[in-house]
Amino acid sequence: MAQQARAVQTRQQIVVAAAHLFSRVGYERARLNDIVGETGLTRGAIYFHFQSKDEIAKIIVEQFQATSIEAVAAIAATGQCAMCQIAMLNREMGRLLTVDPVVRAGIRLTIELNSGEAPIPAYLAWIEALHYLVSLGIHEGDVRPEITPKDAAVFITGAFVGSQVLSQAVSGLEDLPERIERLTGFLLNALMPDDRIAAHPTIVEARVPS
Amino acid sequence: MAQQARAVQTRQQIVVAAAHLFSRVGYERARLNDIVGETGLTRGAIYFHFQSKDEIAKIIVEQFQATSIEAVAAIAATGQCAMCQIAMLNREMGRLLTVDPVVRAGIRLTIELNSGEAPIPAYLAWIEALHYLVSLGIHEGDVRPEITPKDAAVFITGAFVGSQVLSQAVSGLEDLPERIERLTGFLLNALMPDDRIAAHPTIVEARVPS
Repeated sequence: MAQQARAVQTRQQIVVAAAHLFSRVGYERARLNDIVGETGLTRGAIYFHFQSKDEIAKIIVEQFQATSIEAVAAIAATGQCAMCQIAMLNREMGRLLTVDPVVRAGIRLTIELNSGEAPIPAYLAWIEALHYLVSLGIHEGDVRPEITPKDAAVFITGAFVGSQVLSQAVSGLEDLPERIERLTGFLLNALMPDDRIAAHPTIVEARVPS
Repeated sequence: MAQQARAVQTRQQIVVAAAHLFSRVGYERARLNDIVGETGLTRGAIYFHFQSKDEIAKIIVEQFQATSIEAVAAIAATGQCAMCQIAMLNREMGRLLTVDPVVRAGIRLTIELNSGEAPIPAYLAWIEALHYLVSLGIHEGDVRPEITPKDAAVFITGAFVGSQVLSQAVSGLEDLPERIERLTGFLLNALMPDDRIAAHPTIVEARVPS
């Protein structure tokens, strides 16, 4: 059992080291040898767990996906209004991007590994959650009824991805939290009629419980 | 003179071929040798004009920058309202991205070549134009007065970049025009008070004169 626990720990150590590398240089330029350098483990130890960088990349995308789903679930559990949850989700994904190397690499790999033919799986889960929340927001009267929930979900995702790309380019993600704060205000404007924004000033302040 | 004209033409032929390559594989993976293959010219002909891929990449970013500035100027010359111009600018940059390989490569290179320390020069021109237009929109009463023009400019740029990144990943930019159409509607919602949107239904339809 102790041996198995160590194996799981080593495996995750490799995944995290690879995530650091992938988020810095991207899929194409990352080599399994560089991952060896990042971990401080031997080549043999790494090959014992993984046969290729592709295998590690897939696990990173899966873990990123799982983390996104957990974030959506934790936010849903607050029972707050749909627009509050959208604001929280934006902030939480922004926070995860800055603190979690697997999320950072996962987002980059999700875009880079996409074939251009199939939809992006990890974004799909995120888009689906937003789709549901926008529909709920319309039902709650907080979202402009003429808005198509799917289009709104794609818009929010795109705006988030763009903030992240620009923040990465300009500051190496350091200014992402401020960007997300400002973005959240614009997203609320884009989705909510003016009278609902005025009636719900707390939405702008909605935070994930820590 | 004829010889000089041919030289200019060959130079631009190399730039366009390199743009196709850069927009497909990015800066890091593109090699001067691959550019040779793309053009059908000899290595010697290319080295006569350019010493490195870095030199070609800089020219692409400059031409992209010049094209963006021309688009802004042509749209300003219509004399239409600020929000109309913002809608037109979005559509025009979306159109240029799909038809002009230099713009496509320019956007990608602008992000990839950015050091993470200096602001991105090509986006700065675009952000500055949007900054001015949002200020003008506030003056014209079409933009919510509490909005900070610079923040709005960054928001619009980010939303545009995100649409382009997702469109590239999902459809190789094929679905970009539809994405930009839908994005424009959300951007107007985000910036304009409800009563101004209702008063100006034509803004949503504003088009660059062709």
